[in-house]
Amino acid sequence: MNKKEASAQPRYIQIANQIAENIRSGELSVGDQLPTERQLAEELGVSRMTVRQALGVLTQQGLINSQHGIGNFVTRPLLEQPVDILIGFSDNMLKKGIRPSAQLLDLKATNADELLAAELQVPFGDLVFAIRRLRLADNMPMALEYSYFPERYMPGLDKHDLEQRSIYAILAEEYGITLAGAVQTLEPVVALAYTARLLQVSKGAPLMLVTRTSSDNKGRVVEFAKDLYRGDCFRFVSHSRSPLA
Amino acid sequence: MNKKEASAQPRYIQIANQIAENIRSGELSVGDQLPTERQLAEELGVSRMTVRQALGVLTQQGLINSQHGIGNFVTRPLLEQPVDILIGFSDNMLKKGIRPSAQLLDLKATNADELLAAELQVPFGDLVFAIRRLRLADNMPMALEYSYFPERYMPGLDKHDLEQRSIYAILAEEYGITLAGAVQTLEPVVALAYTARLLQVSKGAPLMLVTRTSSDNKGRVVEFAKDLYRGDCFRFVSHSRSPLA
Repeated sequence: MNKKEASAQPRYIQIANQIAENIRSGELSVGDQLPTERQLAEELGVSRMTVRQALGVLTQQGLINSQHGIGNFVTRPLLEQPVDILIGFSDNMLKKGIRPSAQLLDLKATNADELLAAELQVPFGDLVFAIRRLRLADNMPMALEYSYFPERYMPGLDKHDLEQRSIYAILAEEYGITLAGAVQTLEPVVALAYTARLLQVSKGAPLMLVTRTSSDNKGRVVEFAKDLYRGDCFRFVSHSRSPLA
Repeated sequence: MNKKEASAQPRYIQIANQIAENIRSGELSVGDQLPTERQLAEELGVSRMTVRQALGVLTQQGLINSQHGIGNFVTRPLLEQPVDILIGFSDNMLKKGIRPSAQLLDLKATNADELLAAELQVPFGDLVFAIRRLRLADNMPMALEYSYFPERYMPGLDKHDLEQRSIYAILAEEYGITLAGAVQTLEPVVALAYTARLLQVSKGAPLMLVTRTSSDNKGRVVEFAKDLYRGDCFRFVSHSRSPLA
């Protein structure tokens, strides 16, 4: 946004945007208490009414919440995961300054059943690596991944460090695989007991089921995955264009 | 897919795709019973093993379910709503041969509060049409829409038929507004009592909350909307490209 546009905005929006920016940059952390309305008004040289409007915007955006008689506190902002761009969990977290990691729950080489063979476009019975990982952000469980990789394109994938390294990075660096894109479907689901326990949410809590079929620049399907993301921590963002535009 | 690629696929995948196509085209309807394995094997000139594999794919894709001792039945396929393309509910349903309609629950002209003014980029207190509609597909409730339109770009919007006509069509035809694109965020949520009753789902059922800010080809924000879609009826599809590709 250029300067002219910014100054055309009402003052309370500018203030709300500035505070939101301080939250996103980490200058204000989750749980921090904001200065009082009176302090903010004095500091910024505006009326308390303007401060109140700015805080109203932040409250409605879910960035702060007000505890009556105590003050306003920074709440956890939802992590945004793009869906129009194919970016792995690790890279997305790193871009936000959050440390990604993985806990390997299960790893096996298995024979493709009908569904896997169809999704991965390999012959029925072909060898496939089936990997189940819990994904963490700053050590907090965020997503449960079920992913499948055709052994024929990445023999020995199971010998690499799947807890510390991004699998997309392993594909690129060890096998020269360049991802081209993916078809992703998103469905809201509720957590069953097993998933709830792993993700540290309540049974019945909302989760996002993301199903992904990823292809490389040679047109080969190199990944089929079903990921369950915590609905209280993530939202998925798409820049959609009109077919008419 | 060209002919060469199709014939390179195993026979059971071809059969599964053919049956899936018959379901999507409406040749087979929800609740229809499929022919028996024996009948299909004879009809198609393949082994019962091949038929069984094809039915396995369809079962895992959620297109059919098997009722033991009775046979295989067509289940409701999830409706797909694109997220990388901005397409309205009405147009998306019409493309699938489904009749869209709307039930107007609430319509008022209101003054923009802080959040609406910020989202719609209009002055605080500016007039905004607030519209709540239940969206139906072949008369079945599918989504609950909360949408907001700035009065300044579409004066008299409330005088048009918002039950029978698509609002996007009204914007184009009556106000010459050409949509350029939107930023959409998707979050899984669970149905509260009021929403559950309107959408005819259970309390606690998974819903997709889609928040959308749409702009026209002049760069004006012309819509802010929060839609709640039934999770048991919809899935959202994105074609994601790699930033490396």
